[in-house]
Amino acid sequence: MSTTAIGNIGSLVTNDPESGEGPLGLIENAAVVVEDDRIAWVGPTAQAPPADTAFDAQGRALIPGFVDSHSHLVFAGDRTAEFNARMSGRSYSAGGIRTTVAATRAASDAELEANLVARHLDEARRQGTTTFETKSGYGLTVADEARALRIAAAHTEEVTYLGAHIVSPDYAEDPAGYVDLVTGEMLAACAPYARWVDVFCEKGAFDGDQARAILTAGAAAGLIPRVHANQLSYGPGVQLAVELGAASADHCTHLTDADVDALAQAADTTVATLLPGAEFSTRAQWPDARRLLDAGATVALSTDCNPGSSYTSSMPFCIALAVRDMGMTPDEAVWAATAGGARALRRTDIGVLAPGARADLALLDAPSHVHLAYRPGVPLVSAVWQRGVRAA
Amino acid sequence: MSTTAIGNIGSLVTNDPESGEGPLGLIENAAVVVEDDRIAWVGPTAQAPPADTAFDAQGRALIPGFVDSHSHLVFAGDRTAEFNARMSGRSYSAGGIRTTVAATRAASDAELEANLVARHLDEARRQGTTTFETKSGYGLTVADEARALRIAAAHTEEVTYLGAHIVSPDYAEDPAGYVDLVTGEMLAACAPYARWVDVFCEKGAFDGDQARAILTAGAAAGLIPRVHANQLSYGPGVQLAVELGAASADHCTHLTDADVDALAQAADTTVATLLPGAEFSTRAQWPDARRLLDAGATVALSTDCNPGSSYTSSMPFCIALAVRDMGMTPDEAVWAATAGGARALRRTDIGVLAPGARADLALLDAPSHVHLAYRPGVPLVSAVWQRGVRAA
Repeated sequence: MSTTAIGNIGSLVTNDPESGEGPLGLIENAAVVVEDDRIAWVGPTAQAPPADTAFDAQGRALIPGFVDSHSHLVFAGDRTAEFNARMSGRSYSAGGIRTTVAATRAASDAELEANLVARHLDEARRQGTTTFETKSGYGLTVADEARALRIAAAHTEEVTYLGAHIVSPDYAEDPAGYVDLVTGEMLAACAPYARWVDVFCEKGAFDGDQARAILTAGAAAGLIPRVHANQLSYGPGVQLAVELGAASADHCTHLTDADVDALAQAADTTVATLLPGAEFSTRAQWPDARRLLDAGATVALSTDCNPGSSYTSSMPFCIALAVRDMGMTPDEAVWAATAGGARALRRTDIGVLAPGARADLALLDAPSHVHLAYRPGVPLVSAVWQRGVRAA
Repeated sequence: MSTTAIGNIGSLVTNDPESGEGPLGLIENAAVVVEDDRIAWVGPTAQAPPADTAFDAQGRALIPGFVDSHSHLVFAGDRTAEFNARMSGRSYSAGGIRTTVAATRAASDAELEANLVARHLDEARRQGTTTFETKSGYGLTVADEARALRIAAAHTEEVTYLGAHIVSPDYAEDPAGYVDLVTGEMLAACAPYARWVDVFCEKGAFDGDQARAILTAGAAAGLIPRVHANQLSYGPGVQLAVELGAASADHCTHLTDADVDALAQAADTTVATLLPGAEFSTRAQWPDARRLLDAGATVALSTDCNPGSSYTSSMPFCIALAVRDMGMTPDEAVWAATAGGARALRRTDIGVLAPGARADLALLDAPSHVHLAYRPGVPLVSAVWQRGVRAA
């Protein structure tokens, strides 16, 4: 057993209303004592119990590590030319997700894993992310989906089977056949590596009936549903997510009043996960976080990190966008990027700094968590602990 | 004499159309040879001359260091509470610039310098900025303005006298008296430390006649004009900047067709410097870079880093915003953040990678400069050289 006391924290976000002020459970002049991989104590510096080693936060802010509950990190290639053409107003025969599918299928396991680790895991961790969810969805064959999940599972507990990202190009003439594959042989091969099942419920991808079949089959195989819902247009995704008790409805950009009501009613079950990086990178309309919060829905923020529509791994960037363009207060955005993400992953051991929780921490080079929105684009994370170990 | 060859550069932005493709002078598979503090050679890796030491860029992109031609870095205090209230929809009796003036006057020289260095110089350099302009404007007394410039001059050659930021609260009842001070005793005390004279020409600050008097007096004292113009409303700032041959008209958010024409006609003299961090942080309308570029104006991008309206030091963040929201292509935005900034500072030795130029370089953890927009919010700068010396 080893203990570390992080003292002289100018402002501590615990996300535990019982230990500090407001929904963020803020404590000023705080200390955190870490015992091995867990939080042992949280409170005012002056009352901190003794520990083996001390870390002086020098008045800076400490927050729970970010929980990025929606990313697509097992892929190869990038789509620079497609992005450049889109942003330069030039036409470009973009293959979209299919471009990444072809590159991913062609890559070796080692290439996929190196990309996951070097480009994304390390990069995101330096920016304060201590928990990732990540998905398959660029393989779209039994073998390629299963290997994506196997590679992901070596690096995170939060692995999502997204064989239903798009209909595989191999089944362009037989989408029903692809749904059979996704709910049959592919599911059987993938379920052992995954905790979650997901579907892109959208025009051009999977309709409500197909999505229901895929999520129901996944649930029967022991996976918990989450849904890409209502990103590009109105549709049945959100209602389906709520009906099936999905942990999260992701995107939620185009919502009817009935969709908002459904998410508010299901606030304890189904989180509305907003992904502002996607709207930023595709110049799309912003999801209305204010409307969801005012209705009583639970909101999470996540990066959607992927090479096509949101190639950012930065949770601080998502916080700044959510505050600027989605009507969230800085407090709400920081909660959504930490505790909100944990709720979307049905985790009680992360996203909160309370005795017994995982010692996943991000120290900011700033006196307050508000600086994550106040200082947009600035790499403010100056130290990261993951399970009690300095990771950045 | 010592030489370093940076080889295996996947994509090199030279901003020299004679040495590579297009306005960015792009060279693939490139090398740069640095001799002491200068660029000695630029070209294909295979043709690089021998050098004392070698640095392998491993296929990554290299660009000129960013030239941040508009910032306000000599200040004390921050305005977290004001920002938080504004973004949370709460009323707050904000003192605005006056809050920072009070804190700055109360700070010691050492505090001001430590803030400049630790919070901003180092922070911005890690993000690839190798040249700063910075201003006074939070002192508003003869002594406080002069000391701000003296502190700034110890850290950058690009120092701007902005006694005319707002009318000093001490002269609230006598704005004409303040203009007399700014053009008289304060100018005399400040001119030795500064290269530039600037004025905030805006309703509530200084009108066209006052601005003209201030800039003309500054020019008579050997300072070159630059103007805070047309930020919050239409006004005479841009026309005045062009008329007086100012190096830059900064902000340019509210422009008439005549303003755009004037900037286009003056493209070789007066740069339109756009500051998207300000519009981001105040939820204001975006300046229309596309309109200026299509008209033929020269456009620069800069951070406007200051604790009130744009507390970002990140040039990559400004590039991402300019591409997303101001109609710039990634190429145009990267040019504007490097060569454009150099033009706004009338410098030919920076913002370009050609023999004889300063060896100010930023290496990206990405294969292309396009990633600065494609990967928003991600700290992509992995190495920085300033005058040939590794600075980050």
